[in-house]
Amino acid sequence: MMEALRERIERALESFSTDDVAPLLRESMRYSLLGGGKRIRPCLLLLVCSMLGGREEVALPFACALEMIHCYSLIHDDLPAMDDDAIRRGRPSNHVKFGEANAILAGDGLLTKAALLLAEQNGFDDAKRAILEGAYAMVSGQSDDLNLTERSAETLERIHVRKTGALFKAACVAGAYLSDPMRAEEMGAFGDTLGLLFQMTDDLLDAARDREEGKLTYVTYYGEAETAQFVQDAASRASAILKPYHGEAAETLRALIAALKSRTE
Amino acid sequence: MMEALRERIERALESFSTDDVAPLLRESMRYSLLGGGKRIRPCLLLLVCSMLGGREEVALPFACALEMIHCYSLIHDDLPAMDDDAIRRGRPSNHVKFGEANAILAGDGLLTKAALLLAEQNGFDDAKRAILEGAYAMVSGQSDDLNLTERSAETLERIHVRKTGALFKAACVAGAYLSDPMRAEEMGAFGDTLGLLFQMTDDLLDAARDREEGKLTYVTYYGEAETAQFVQDAASRASAILKPYHGEAAETLRALIAALKSRTE
Repeated sequence: MMEALRERIERALESFSTDDVAPLLRESMRYSLLGGGKRIRPCLLLLVCSMLGGREEVALPFACALEMIHCYSLIHDDLPAMDDDAIRRGRPSNHVKFGEANAILAGDGLLTKAALLLAEQNGFDDAKRAILEGAYAMVSGQSDDLNLTERSAETLERIHVRKTGALFKAACVAGAYLSDPMRAEEMGAFGDTLGLLFQMTDDLLDAARDREEGKLTYVTYYGEAETAQFVQDAASRASAILKPYHGEAAETLRALIAALKSRTE
Repeated sequence: MMEALRERIERALESFSTDDVAPLLRESMRYSLLGGGKRIRPCLLLLVCSMLGGREEVALPFACALEMIHCYSLIHDDLPAMDDDAIRRGRPSNHVKFGEANAILAGDGLLTKAALLLAEQNGFDDAKRAILEGAYAMVSGQSDDLNLTERSAETLERIHVRKTGALFKAACVAGAYLSDPMRAEEMGAFGDTLGLLFQMTDDLLDAARDREEGKLTYVTYYGEAETAQFVQDAASRASAILKPYHGEAAETLRALIAALKSRTE
């Protein structure tokens, strides 16, 4: 199911990125937006929506807006003034390919397009707000990360919850608002947990580099063994939330949890 | 009226920028958002709305979102990779004060907050879309400007229409959608004309610097005399559109046209 879902997301992202804007803006936006990626956030949104009985064609623009927000944040993150990463997904980062000024605009364009795409949908105001609140919390987390003053468990938690967790949570909350709003809180908790799982396995995978760079991550703060235990706990909590749900979407979400968990095994 | 209006806008901008986000993000967003400025775009939105019988308290969040979008674009424009301006409104630009990385995030935060503020309002979907379409067209114009390949009247027009004209038009169209949607097209034409008037008087004021930097502007392309004539023409066209309207808001808009026109006299 996941592969077919990803293909539908790719097609939708393609169709939502053909606006009549300046040629180089369109090219640079599409370069990053259509240049691969696991599409985990839009998949999550669509799977939660589908699991709760919602319609995928209604949810697709929301899922694409969320992915555009994720994509803009990567472009800006990679800039020389930020993380200064020259490679993204095995290709030159946006600013290496198009220059810094165009990369700044490509990010601005994707964030604007995401907001416009949401505004173009009828109704589902709660889902729109959930996605934009996630986007706002993400910027806040990046700022906290950038201006780190103390290395504490609280700081680590606050940065993570906002920086990575925010869009994972937004995906699941929006998926619920698009199908069964009564489940929004429960799905928010699911998104939080899954975001944590994703962040901690990421930290385990990048442990050597992060240590070298003195970054504050779950691994550099708690160590690998404890983080690995946290991963198991988070996977259990996420699975527990899914317990009452059945059907193809729920099964795919369970497979996603297993896949995330096994990234580091 | 204009002064009182500006004060209400200042108060609203202040109240909309106190979110519980990372302290430095909030500070850097507020530094640029509350650091002065003519507030011409939000004034326009509120005046058009009021002239057409709409309610200011409904329109204020929309006006503030528009000003946040304008403000984010200034922060990103001033970045070293873009125009590299160290001074904005007589104070250090955002990146000089907070560093490049924080300035990028301050711009991202303001654009996100603008979209969220719009999403938090009930109804008036057309007004929301008009503002975000303006924001998207603005990025497109900036990209065109940045990647200039030919100096033609068409290029000049396309860049201007999108770069400056887009938010002026959005202000007036949104003002109409918030009061009398049947007037949206007429007010769009008014916004276009006023944007042109603003851009051309700006170009006249910056003529010496733009010539030195080889910029493509109305003055460097058509010369000062012809641009001054265009200014008169645009002011006449804008006044003609306002002809059927009376009352305080219409009078204030007429005064605004006169003030813009007289900037270069």
